[in-house]
Amino acid sequence: MSGPVYLDYNATAKVRPEAIIAVSDALTRGGNPSSVHAAGRAARGAMETGRGQIAALVGAGPGNLTFTSGGTEASGIAVASAVRSGVERIIVGATEHDCVKCEAADSGLSVEVWPVDASGVADLNWLAERLANGPRALVCLMLANNETGVIQPVAQVSALTSAAGAWLHVDAVQAAGKIDIDFAALGAETLAISAHKIGGPQGVGALVSREGVAVGSRQRGGGQERGKRGGTENGPGIAGFAAAAVAVRRDLSALQAQAAWRDALAARMADAGAVVIGADAPRLPQTLCVATPGFAADIQVMNMDLAGVMISAGSACSSGKVKASAVITAMGHDDLAPFGIRVSGGWGSAEADWARCGDVWLEALNHHRRRREAA
Amino acid sequence: MSGPVYLDYNATAKVRPEAIIAVSDALTRGGNPSSVHAAGRAARGAMETGRGQIAALVGAGPGNLTFTSGGTEASGIAVASAVRSGVERIIVGATEHDCVKCEAADSGLSVEVWPVDASGVADLNWLAERLANGPRALVCLMLANNETGVIQPVAQVSALTSAAGAWLHVDAVQAAGKIDIDFAALGAETLAISAHKIGGPQGVGALVSREGVAVGSRQRGGGQERGKRGGTENGPGIAGFAAAAVAVRRDLSALQAQAAWRDALAARMADAGAVVIGADAPRLPQTLCVATPGFAADIQVMNMDLAGVMISAGSACSSGKVKASAVITAMGHDDLAPFGIRVSGGWGSAEADWARCGDVWLEALNHHRRRREAA
Repeated sequence: MSGPVYLDYNATAKVRPEAIIAVSDALTRGGNPSSVHAAGRAARGAMETGRGQIAALVGAGPGNLTFTSGGTEASGIAVASAVRSGVERIIVGATEHDCVKCEAADSGLSVEVWPVDASGVADLNWLAERLANGPRALVCLMLANNETGVIQPVAQVSALTSAAGAWLHVDAVQAAGKIDIDFAALGAETLAISAHKIGGPQGVGALVSREGVAVGSRQRGGGQERGKRGGTENGPGIAGFAAAAVAVRRDLSALQAQAAWRDALAARMADAGAVVIGADAPRLPQTLCVATPGFAADIQVMNMDLAGVMISAGSACSSGKVKASAVITAMGHDDLAPFGIRVSGGWGSAEADWARCGDVWLEALNHHRRRREAA
Repeated sequence: MSGPVYLDYNATAKVRPEAIIAVSDALTRGGNPSSVHAAGRAARGAMETGRGQIAALVGAGPGNLTFTSGGTEASGIAVASAVRSGVERIIVGATEHDCVKCEAADSGLSVEVWPVDASGVADLNWLAERLANGPRALVCLMLANNETGVIQPVAQVSALTSAAGAWLHVDAVQAAGKIDIDFAALGAETLAISAHKIGGPQGVGALVSREGVAVGSRQRGGGQERGKRGGTENGPGIAGFAAAAVAVRRDLSALQAQAAWRDALAARMADAGAVVIGADAPRLPQTLCVATPGFAADIQVMNMDLAGVMISAGSACSSGKVKASAVITAMGHDDLAPFGIRVSGGWGSAEADWARCGDVWLEALNHHRRRREAA
């Protein structure tokens, strides 16, 4: 019997061995980066080395990076900073993560939902028209969707936002480490990344910001991060984040191989009646979102878990409850939303894992159909 | 030759071996606590076990605890929650940490600075009078000061605040793990703690709140922490925090032994002309703040660092710059503030460390005096 298969990297990646070692070493070394003595200077040196390594993953410089407690905080600071800069409305992609939607809703500004097409891609014409009519906006668009893996045309969007003087915030939490990211070429004002989605530890992320763009947290504390985010820096977390960033960058082309394994699984599932969500759009290489009419998502997840294969229904967030996918709904497939599951691989996934996922899923589906026929 | 001596636990404690193992194990185990599959449930189980262990350190129940990225965020959420609850002014202890002062200043409400006496203890009569005159207040008082170790009479304060219907927030970041804390007996509405000050990892803390007191972050994200604080929970950080909490509770009485070592050092320093700050007040057992007129704090810290003994001047926060201590100034000792240093031990400190600190300090002082006489 083989061990359990973990194909839920988009919820949280398996932590890379390099990252575990880096965290342990940093914990053992200790030190507060703000202390002036030897231990403090060593901690600061390690943190600044890490800052450069993480910035390099997204084609940015160390000066562009502000450390946070994760992607949610990074996007929160971005939205709050844009609001402080005087934007008068927020345009939010229809399939954005809840953390961006909540932050926009809490801002007190008017929020316009930017529709996506049936493939999950944001409508550029819609945006151009909206930007032409109305005051200065904050535009929030994720680089790749957490549930479907659909990649948004961010560089084209930034041509529109920069012409309109808008602030473009990009949630790149799911894209980082899975596709090449060049912050300068994307043209965004701010971009959020998270360690635990790339094989680093939970509890650390970063906000990348363009030079001249003023970002800052309400959390000022002891003036850390050049006054942009207070509170003792998470030295060990940053060390693990950096180790994962280096590894993920090195392995970026190898990860693309998963697209073939992913597509082989998708073909087997489609043969059995599943619909691949976002199939026509450019997607992350290791993410598969499928919906099988009549086969409820939570039943799929539970049965596969019992058989030792871990996947998810929609996003992993919230209180462990499975709801109909808001992302699939936003794509206009309301009829498919209750049936959507997500399979997502990563650095530790082998072709055999994807194949086993297919075996187990087909077995669960056949079992489900037999029960339905018997009923 | 002996290795370097670390006596700067109040800046960041040496991480306990138990905590390093717990973090590594959790990183290896992986899983997102919000995932419904086996890995997710295991991560959630570990997190909830940790929540109970950490709550027990401060005499609270697991339901009272909301995890944050650290003490700064915890105090920030407390202040923001009190403001949302309708308080109309904020009373802040004169020697509070910058994170509380900044959050109060950013609230938009009027802020009254609550004076301390020459020993650093908050003036109860002043508070009683202020509470009697004016609208409902948030009162912020730390349980123990980070620079001097002075312990505030929080239980007496809460008698006044609860009679006045005020919200009492207690920053217990430095007190936790060093003295016994009973959240219920303290009578506060909210209380902030941090892992890295008790030998856990950096990047994780908690806000303790009384039942019926509504706390919540602006950061809502995926609805984690029952909607009180969004963003994927820091599973490994919480595991390390919990391991440290268990160890620190077990070792609480052993830590009190450091008071004798600390006092022996204080006596040697006082003989040489140093003034012990807060000497007349109840203090943490392992914190010593002394000022030696004419012997600048940064010179002391640098010279001792060169000799392998790590201490600090005032608080470690901010950008590694040494400023005259605002805490000593608030105690009315403006003349001593530029000369204040802090020596703080912890679980890994031996009597010999405190003794060596004394040797090195006396050598630095004598060297300094010889140079001054020669000039």
